[in-house]
Amino acid sequence: MSESSSAYLLERAWVDGAVRDDVLVEIEDGRFTSVTPVGQNLHLSGEVSAEKYRFPRVPGETTRLPGLTIPGLRNDHSHAFHRALRGRTQVGRGTFWTWREQMYDVAARLAPDAYFALARATYREMVAAGYTSVSEFHYLHAPEPAMGDALRSAAAEAGIRITLLDTCYVSSGFGAPPEGAQLRFSDGTAEQWAARVGDGPAAIHSVRAVPREQLHVFRGRDPLHVHLSEQQQENEACLAAYGVTPTRLLHDEGLLGPGTTVVHATHLTDDDIALLGATRTNVCVTPTTERDLADGIGPARRLADAGCRITIGSDSHAVIDPFEELRGLEMDERLVTRERGHWSAAELLAIGAAGGIAVGEPADLVTIDTASPRTAGTGADEHTAVFAATGADVTQVVIGGRVVATRDDHEAIGRELDAALSALMVSTLTGRAGRVP
Amino acid sequence: MSESSSAYLLERAWVDGAVRDDVLVEIEDGRFTSVTPVGQNLHLSGEVSAEKYRFPRVPGETTRLPGLTIPGLRNDHSHAFHRALRGRTQVGRGTFWTWREQMYDVAARLAPDAYFALARATYREMVAAGYTSVSEFHYLHAPEPAMGDALRSAAAEAGIRITLLDTCYVSSGFGAPPEGAQLRFSDGTAEQWAARVGDGPAAIHSVRAVPREQLHVFRGRDPLHVHLSEQQQENEACLAAYGVTPTRLLHDEGLLGPGTTVVHATHLTDDDIALLGATRTNVCVTPTTERDLADGIGPARRLADAGCRITIGSDSHAVIDPFEELRGLEMDERLVTRERGHWSAAELLAIGAAGGIAVGEPADLVTIDTASPRTAGTGADEHTAVFAATGADVTQVVIGGRVVATRDDHEAIGRELDAALSALMVSTLTGRAGRVP
Repeated sequence: MSESSSAYLLERAWVDGAVRDDVLVEIEDGRFTSVTPVGQNLHLSGEVSAEKYRFPRVPGETTRLPGLTIPGLRNDHSHAFHRALRGRTQVGRGTFWTWREQMYDVAARLAPDAYFALARATYREMVAAGYTSVSEFHYLHAPEPAMGDALRSAAAEAGIRITLLDTCYVSSGFGAPPEGAQLRFSDGTAEQWAARVGDGPAAIHSVRAVPREQLHVFRGRDPLHVHLSEQQQENEACLAAYGVTPTRLLHDEGLLGPGTTVVHATHLTDDDIALLGATRTNVCVTPTTERDLADGIGPARRLADAGCRITIGSDSHAVIDPFEELRGLEMDERLVTRERGHWSAAELLAIGAAGGIAVGEPADLVTIDTASPRTAGTGADEHTAVFAATGADVTQVVIGGRVVATRDDHEAIGRELDAALSALMVSTLTGRAGRVP
Repeated sequence: MSESSSAYLLERAWVDGAVRDDVLVEIEDGRFTSVTPVGQNLHLSGEVSAEKYRFPRVPGETTRLPGLTIPGLRNDHSHAFHRALRGRTQVGRGTFWTWREQMYDVAARLAPDAYFALARATYREMVAAGYTSVSEFHYLHAPEPAMGDALRSAAAEAGIRITLLDTCYVSSGFGAPPEGAQLRFSDGTAEQWAARVGDGPAAIHSVRAVPREQLHVFRGRDPLHVHLSEQQQENEACLAAYGVTPTRLLHDEGLLGPGTTVVHATHLTDDDIALLGATRTNVCVTPTTERDLADGIGPARRLADAGCRITIGSDSHAVIDPFEELRGLEMDERLVTRERGHWSAAELLAIGAAGGIAVGEPADLVTIDTASPRTAGTGADEHTAVFAATGADVTQVVIGGRVVATRDDHEAIGRELDAALSALMVSTLTGRAGRVP
């Protein structure tokens, strides 16, 4: 077997929309070259018919992976530096807007080296929890390009696939100039942003952050991400400034479509939902962040029914756990409607997956312990993954054919996070008695 | 040091409403005999003034416990057998009422031996997650008394303190006789229930399950638990039957007060809240169950402000994680109000705690890893416990001075759950393809 080849026999795996026993996967150059459910006949007969089942074409060892293996999970919205805020902004009352002030305190003092250390540890936490790719919504440009480079290097060292969305932020509100920490976000104008970024992955921070007359700059961008209607206040200000909702504004500027991902989409009108659905726009929801920031519960099910593809993101990193994020989608709908069963476990798994365990796809595999205190006796199937497991139950993560994390790494990842965050001394920022070595 | 004595030096501990460094606790016969924050002076001076700090009076080894130690957590509402349903009832649409049919399927086939095995494993899962006591709301009496004995034995072997609430259930609805699985719940009448139970801990299943004219039997009972207004349908049926809300009914029958705990209290009128508060009735909320069963979000903050003591319970065991339960209280309020900061971390910790780390209290200690992927860099204080930790971060649990679980036991607990649940063959019950060895 060559350096770039490997093979796994997966005890249980989510393949083609169902959980199957004993799935043999072969990997070459980071992609699956064969995926074969060898199934229970193997057990019954003690030998396997060559006509019926394919076996590794390359000689070498096949690693048996016990537990339930699912495709790699996609984290479609991340602000890596927000990890510094976990547990640190829970003092006193407030709203999203008071939380934002605390977030800016951290944003203002991040230097590239410290950001590299924090992002690497945060990406490792993501990988350990089952995320194999991340869309990083990056607006801390200055000093440029060191901050973006720090994120790319951090992802590379953590082994996670990254889409670095360079984010345009040139206005503090509708017509207001950037101020304070926002100054390091700004390129001056969208045209200047475009000149700097070239044709790479792009984001508009929000309709607050780029004036309407500059939005044409983003037409045809793919991928293009944008925060949308996370707060009612944004909707009201947009209506006051332009006479339309943020969704309608993006639509009228030609910015919705299958290459665009709107993030949150919490407070929408029926017309907004119809526009997003008709244009096949992607919608990234972030249930654990929306819960933490008191954003409210968005119409994810209605958006999917209208034609949108739904993705998830850990966003503020109050929680980094794709399973909690996926079941959050269903649980939030339950709290609103008082009915169960809005999303099947299979639908939720499809929402979370970056690809599938299928020939030609990137060889990303997330293996879940099906006999942990949380998962034991829950069926070892998609319901176990979505309704019982947590990030702590992930035993191994393979990205591009390479083992990037096992459960044995969790302790070291915790220590790395601790070191990176201690170095930032965030505890002093928020005025709380902290223990910074 | 005698068999029944021990001493711990806690790196960080929640004592008297604050997190303190280096707290020395001594334990004799299951209770704390001294609790002394020896604090940072120890580090500064390298030696300690005998005038200022007390040290173990009994010679012997003091065990140093790294991490954050909090008091034992109370699980104030459990139906142990519901653990068999985790991940198994998530197929198709439905409500609380369709879920109840599936739950009855399991209830109908539980024999005492199988229940002992399931409950012991479930209680071990609770202990590992940080619960040190459980109020078991027990209504599977028949064959009596073997089912109750099974629960008591299971708790004893798992090392958790149990309050076995023998539950009266003599009516299927307002005036309807028990049927199907409910037959094993019923004593016929509340008087017959009382004759069997004597003066032990008691529960009324709900105002649906005991006719008004029999409720007087429960006057003066302490503790007395009752499911209250989990569903709108109960309220409507109660109004139709008696012309009053379930809360008003319990009040008029003299059943509210500091010895009573109402469970859920989700759908209340302003008058209900005032009655519960004025009578200093306890309210047990179960956020992860209420989320799972699409019950809705109850007015926990308003109940506390009105005068109620709030507790938490894992109830249906869709999730067994006291930290998720506690932050669920705050997160649910955020989703409803779009504001943050309804409960401080200290208030939530007090809600969760069975007692305190204080002289004379039962010696229950729950230690949390403050450098796990989830908790690292979050302050190692009450915010870490409530807003970052999960049950998987609990490294050690001491109950009554005895180490009952460490993180090394999690694997064995998972296997025990798997064995108990496989034996029940629940997978065949719910019509899903399962893997039962």
